[in-house]
Amino acid sequence: MRFFSDNAAAVCPEVMEALAAANHLDTAYDGDTLSQRLSRVFSDLFEREVAALWVGTGTAANALALAELCPPHGGVICHRDAHINNDECGAPEFYTHGAKLMLVEGEGAKVTPQAVEALLATVRKDVHQVQPAAVSITNASEYGRVYTPDETAALGEICRQRGLGLHLDGARFANAVARLGCAPADLTWRAGVDVLSFGFVKNGGMSSEALIFFDRDRAAATHYRRKRAGHLLSKGRYLAAQILAMLEGDVWLRNARAANDAADRIAGAAGAERLVEPVEANELFLRVTAAEAAALRSQGFDFYDWGPGQVRLVTSWDSDPAQVDRLATAIRAL
Amino acid sequence: MRFFSDNAAAVCPEVMEALAAANHLDTAYDGDTLSQRLSRVFSDLFEREVAALWVGTGTAANALALAELCPPHGGVICHRDAHINNDECGAPEFYTHGAKLMLVEGEGAKVTPQAVEALLATVRKDVHQVQPAAVSITNASEYGRVYTPDETAALGEICRQRGLGLHLDGARFANAVARLGCAPADLTWRAGVDVLSFGFVKNGGMSSEALIFFDRDRAAATHYRRKRAGHLLSKGRYLAAQILAMLEGDVWLRNARAANDAADRIAGAAGAERLVEPVEANELFLRVTAAEAAALRSQGFDFYDWGPGQVRLVTSWDSDPAQVDRLATAIRAL
Amino acid sequence: MRFFSDNAAAVCPEVMEALAAANHLDTAYDGDTLSQRLSRVFSDLFEREVAALWVGTGTAANALALAELCPPHGGVICHRDAHINNDECGAPEFYTHGAKLMLVEGEGAKVTPQAVEALLATVRKDVHQVQPAAVSITNASEYGRVYTPDETAALGEICRQRGLGLHLDGARFANAVARLGCAPADLTWRAGVDVLSFGFVKNGGMSSEALIFFDRDRAAATHYRRKRAGHLLSKGRYLAAQILAMLEGDVWLRNARAANDAADRIAGAAGAERLVEPVEANELFLRVTAAEAAALRSQGFDFYDWGPGQVRLVTSWDSDPAQVDRLATAIRAL
Amino acid sequence: MRFFSDNAAAVCPEVMEALAAANHLDTAYDGDTLSQRLSRVFSDLFEREVAALWVGTGTAANALALAELCPPHGGVICHRDAHINNDECGAPEFYTHGAKLMLVEGEGAKVTPQAVEALLATVRKDVHQVQPAAVSITNASEYGRVYTPDETAALGEICRQRGLGLHLDGARFANAVARLGCAPADLTWRAGVDVLSFGFVKNGGMSSEALIFFDRDRAAATHYRRKRAGHLLSKGRYLAAQILAMLEGDVWLRNARAANDAADRIAGAAGAERLVEPVEANELFLRVTAAEAAALRSQGFDFYDWGPGQVRLVTSWDSDPAQVDRLATAIRAL
Repeated sequence: MRFFSDNAAAVCPEVMEALAAANHLDTAYDGDTLSQRLSRVFSDLFEREVAALWVGTGTAANALALAELCPPHGGVICHRDAHINNDECGAPEFYTHGAKLMLVEGEGAKVTPQAVEALLATVRKDVHQVQPAAVSITNASEYGRVYTPDETAALGEICRQRGLGLHLDGARFANAVARLGCAPADLTWRAGVDVLSFGFVKNGGMSSEALIFFDRDRAAATHYRRKRAGHLLSKGRYLAAQILAMLEGDVWLRNARAANDAADRIAGAAGAERLVEPVEANELFLRVTAAEAAALRSQGFDFYDWGPGQVRLVTSWDSDPAQVDRLATAIRAL
Repeated sequence: MRFFSDNAAAVCPEVMEALAAANHLDTAYDGDTLSQRLSRVFSDLFEREVAALWVGTGTAANALALAELCPPHGGVICHRDAHINNDECGAPEFYTHGAKLMLVEGEGAKVTPQAVEALLATVRKDVHQVQPAAVSITNASEYGRVYTPDETAALGEICRQRGLGLHLDGARFANAVARLGCAPADLTWRAGVDVLSFGFVKNGGMSSEALIFFDRDRAAATHYRRKRAGHLLSKGRYLAAQILAMLEGDVWLRNARAANDAADRIAGAAGAERLVEPVEANELFLRVTAAEAAALRSQGFDFYDWGPGQVRLVTSWDSDPAQVDRLATAIRAL
Repeated sequence: MRFFSDNAAAVCPEVMEALAAANHLDTAYDGDTLSQRLSRVFSDLFEREVAALWVGTGTAANALALAELCPPHGGVICHRDAHINNDECGAPEFYTHGAKLMLVEGEGAKVTPQAVEALLATVRKDVHQVQPAAVSITNASEYGRVYTPDETAALGEICRQRGLGLHLDGARFANAVARLGCAPADLTWRAGVDVLSFGFVKNGGMSSEALIFFDRDRAAATHYRRKRAGHLLSKGRYLAAQILAMLEGDVWLRNARAANDAADRIAGAAGAERLVEPVEANELFLRVTAAEAAALRSQGFDFYDWGPGQVRLVTSWDSDPAQVDRLATAIRAL
Repeated sequence: MRFFSDNAAAVCPEVMEALAAANHLDTAYDGDTLSQRLSRVFSDLFEREVAALWVGTGTAANALALAELCPPHGGVICHRDAHINNDECGAPEFYTHGAKLMLVEGEGAKVTPQAVEALLATVRKDVHQVQPAAVSITNASEYGRVYTPDETAALGEICRQRGLGLHLDGARFANAVARLGCAPADLTWRAGVDVLSFGFVKNGGMSSEALIFFDRDRAAATHYRRKRAGHLLSKGRYLAAQILAMLEGDVWLRNARAANDAADRIAGAAGAERLVEPVEANELFLRVTAAEAAALRSQGFDFYDWGPGQVRLVTSWDSDPAQVDRLATAIRAL
């Protein structure tokens, strides 16, 4: 009964079926019928003409997005706990050719307008200092928190005023949309987001994420960067197929709701005092003693320790309701 | 009846089955059972302890290999028609941080010892010039030609003497091994190859290539580079599964033989005078007039023009024997 | 009466004379007689065989040093206020091809062993995180503080234990040595420093800094990197001449002592309560109100504001004693 | 009596005097009075408002220019014998972050419109191939040949049509202008040149070259790139002083004419049959046997061998007329 990560989950049946259905000769790279449909389908979803590309990982999606928004001599403002800073082995620095991540603090791994303003105030406008060029946020955040449309728009407004690009790492974008019940547009371009890394792998996909440019003209160089980074798969139709399968019939939302619901059930059992962070997506950060953690593990539950006295549990699209209930019961019983 | 590229072919059934069989929760990234078996299985195949990593594309495999063999201020000697020079949008330059490809000419897109020596003779040993650090060859070559073990070893010997690394782009390594009937070791480390990009996608895979380091210690930094490049998939087990399925029972050789045989049948029909290059793998370069090409296309055969009066046809693991025969007949009838 | 920066000072007469004396035909780049003497002269100064190269700026010296000590996927631990982080527009990121500066805090812009250990403790040893490869310190620091030989050695010991390189940004190394009265070796290789950026420009030079590798073998790639960065001047003898002139007869120490003494006189006049930082080199950070700063400026003294209620003054090798005395008097009179 | 390179020559007296005259406190970096005059003075010279920056070497100037004209995934078309390809250790690749130099052949190291068109014809317009973004030429060329205004304009017209930037490596721009007797504008912006590396060091300077952007807006990012590359000297006034001294009273043209005249005298003595290349600047490529070369060397003349049966001699602004006459006599006597 593993609650390590949604990365470890299986692939949902719609995706497996789509792979099988795509298994015939077609044009290589992204010239196939499925890849050619991507921008159309995402444009419908986002209520605006967008350019959409598939890439194999969220790290690649994020790094490609930042390479478009920030020159090598620029800076990207992000949270200290951001995935791009903490878990990508310097991918943003690689793809941007050496841009600097400029770190802010903030509750729940969320970037606030105040934090951005405070950082900007420390930067002299001269050639000796790296000039910020973009802000990157993660929704849902690395601590399972969501930005509302208004919170996003407040950051978007600062970016607009200060000439900064706004990138949204949406590895768990589905979980955020499912939680908030808003339109995808409300969390993105209507709030000032320029580029979105739209995650599918954690949510039931196998090997395909989408990179969405809300200004279609800004996608041009990314086609070259993607190829140059070795991310233009020759049988790209199998990546397109995964995404299309998850958009069809809102599988992406169904899966995200399942994961969120599982997290909610565990959170309810844990009670507010154990929660290090409010549970707003599919991650739980709980206060448990070492003895309590050991007790849970002895009952077959696995998860990561997350600093002294804290653990992280992640639910996924296919979290077994019975296992979730047993975990909830076990936590309640601590 | 498309003979554009083996990139366009479908995925072989063993791979599809392996994906289905892998579809359950496991450890993320490359910590899963399947990924952990890769080095063992390839060590057996190559009769030597090797380090093996999966990556999503041949371009990524090649570029990661070169980043290990060549510093940013170094050079990589390769053929002007090499895929790394001509079809990867500068991926080697990206991953090596700006190394220079130093181009040689040679029949059939093959690098000869003489060409390497001649290029080396032009380089002054001073800091004003980029110093060659590696040689990269492709087997089977971009013109469907193979290097024999002896030919490879002759290049390996120069590399050894001159302190150069030797990389083998094996996007169609299976086709070369199948053609030559030699041990994989004979075309690689026994002949002085340091790193191999071992292709599976063109040969029936979906999205997984193998990067093989014959000196296991040289793989260390590549684990970081792969992550940093966004090529460490979180559900990596689906990549390992594809490779393992194709190694099991020598599916890789069976598939390559099928493609080679199809090419042979067409070559036999075309006759020696039409062949721009001897057919040694699964690519055919034929002399046909524009009218002849049009005649073939009017019968439903599709392929690329390849310069004036020439066309390229590529067979694949699943080339339909009936279609191949019809094509052979059509060519014979020209 | 400007106390903005030692960067603004004139060039000392010994350097001007050396330029004139070098003004004849000689071998280009660094093949000339003067450049060829550099390693010998620095080896004598440091009581050890070193490799020494001239470069045009401290930024280039620092960035070249870090490129040797840290791979593109590595990290450099430094103080948040370090020049390499704050005033070089990302030069370390450029030369290292995207390494990450990992920031620590500490009094007086000094890095402590505790801060290094604390940072190291936050880094998981896996491929998802950038792994620290080096520590960089500045002596005298950006706040005019010095590291003693013992303090340096404590950092050197951590670096040795953890396999990290140790770089010393010595833009004001002369001021530190002059203050401490120790051997240059005591602040560098005897304390574990691998590479030193030895500054001359702030101390009376015109356009030449020295980059010192205490392990001579580690200088090899830097010769290529220097050329590749456009820092191998064709008339390099004029850079070598500047450095040799300042080493001859210990001009570098004489100049640094003059600057330090001027700072001391002002510090004495200011009194301990006004000093934000102890004055240990040639920089002063004083607490003065806006009105007091205006009063000083109205008497002809110029300097930078340094945050609310603070100013920075820098003395130099040629600070006019009369002006220094007038400033001391003016500050005392506030 | 060395005729190795104009790089080895001394610095002309006007520059030495200007260094002395600038030797007083001023604003650091390029905030000083002299640096601030550069754009004005060059705008007058070029009869157009330009942006001018000093940098320390021609290699840096070239690489900064190309970084502005070409993205990391683009290509720069240049001659195989171009300095940027052959003598800069990959500086263009470093500064552009991995762009590809696309080589053409041509007599006298000159790029022809035909060669550019032929190369462009080989490039498919897809993401698999590096797309050319700029052309770089050298005037006077690496073989001492000049491009006329018309020849330059023909290349400029291709660039305009094809959306390519045009860079001029003017390490010996002065020699070209002096030879052609045209306006500097005629060889640059009037002919379509976007950025010029204007050389002063080979022509009597010490350590300062100018980088000229004919569209002033294109200089903006270069200020950051220059700093980031460690080329923003803190005492930049000494670089500005060199350039201003050589522009004042047309010292740059006087010096170039002296070098050109010396080359002409030697060429006249050598006779047309010995000339590998017409002498149009200050370089001579002569056919001499090994015995003849030895004979010259035994009389005290030094120079480079340049392939079998050929030597290179370079004159400079301060070539001693008596030595030149003795060399002319010695060559005539062979």
